[in-house]
Amino acid sequence: MEYPSKLVENAVLEVAKLPGIGKKTALRLVLHLLKQEKHTTYKLSESLTELVDKTTYCARCHSISDESLCRICTSPKRDPKIVCIVEDTNDVLAIENTGQFWGQYHILGGVISPMNGIGPSDLNIETLIKRVGLGEIEEIILALSPNMEGDTTAFYLSKKLQQYPIKLSTIARGIPLGGELEYADELTLGRSIQTRIVYQ
Amino acid sequence: MEYPSKLVENAVLEVAKLPGIGKKTALRLVLHLLKQEKHTTYKLSESLTELVDKTTYCARCHSISDESLCRICTSPKRDPKIVCIVEDTNDVLAIENTGQFWGQYHILGGVISPMNGIGPSDLNIETLIKRVGLGEIEEIILALSPNMEGDTTAFYLSKKLQQYPIKLSTIARGIPLGGELEYADELTLGRSIQTRIVYQ
Repeated sequence: MEYPSKLVENAVLEVAKLPGIGKKTALRLVLHLLKQEKHTTYKLSESLTELVDKTTYCARCHSISDESLCRICTSPKRDPKIVCIVEDTNDVLAIENTGQFWGQYHILGGVISPMNGIGPSDLNIETLIKRVGLGEIEEIILALSPNMEGDTTAFYLSKKLQQYPIKLSTIARGIPLGGELEYADELTLGRSIQTRIVYQ
Repeated sequence: MEYPSKLVENAVLEVAKLPGIGKKTALRLVLHLLKQEKHTTYKLSESLTELVDKTTYCARCHSISDESLCRICTSPKRDPKIVCIVEDTNDVLAIENTGQFWGQYHILGGVISPMNGIGPSDLNIETLIKRVGLGEIEEIILALSPNMEGDTTAFYLSKKLQQYPIKLSTIARGIPLGGELEYADELTLGRSIQTRIVYQ
């Protein structure tokens, strides 16, 4: 594609690095910004720079936080005895949206992925073991994505946590609610039969 | 929605001001930036600030340009005798993509819209009249959006250009290629009958 100017091209290439934004959308956004007052763009740029410069993480669960401990870790309404282990902050938000979890979280900051050079030492696993070592946690729920990396990480964690007297579970994998059985892939359907819920 | 931190919230609100980006997408983008190296965000912010600070416009056609005259206005391959009048740079890119126009452009920078307080004096109409006054232009094609504002602007321009010995036309409105006749709205279909193309 030929861009009207070098500056537009630069901006488009940078914006198009964002996930889910192609060059066409990026161009639309860039031309939109050019039509707005300059301070719209200044505010956008500033908010992003400030975001990456000043964002801090909760000392206990490693979630994004304004304070040294996050809202969830300090809330008296949340049960510190149940901890849900997730990959990143997006997952915390997704689980919070369900309104079905009242415990606390522990964010790994990724999953074990030898292909991408990410090993256990790159994740927040040591701090998790320390948290468990304090003896306050009674139950841990693994909420990792149901793929190779997620399963590897879950397996690694279950080995590491074996020695502690805690309940350990993983979120159920199966047919999504509202999904049609005949369109489910065979792996999911197979797994849903293996891990069937027993009524009586 | 509850955001994990004030900084995230600020960034989300700014990103969500972009057209076609809601708060959910904005949050996804913001969390993505937090996972990347800081310089990704620095480069993005810089490219946008530079864009609005340094972008210049072609002195002849008002298109975005690196130089005082844009690539199209200086190209020896483009015919300066035919000028296409468009609302903004997006429209230039759209017409360039068709590969069906070899003339030059004139960008109005908007359309007449009393509702939004935009009158003829807010648009690049005076410079257009000057260009036409030089006597080099033989044909003008109006390529404005087929809506109230576009039609008003086209009408205004046709009145203004009446006194000059030029050919004046507007791009055809009708059934889009590949469109089904029965699904066309009645206005478009009606217009396509009025402005039918005569074979013999």
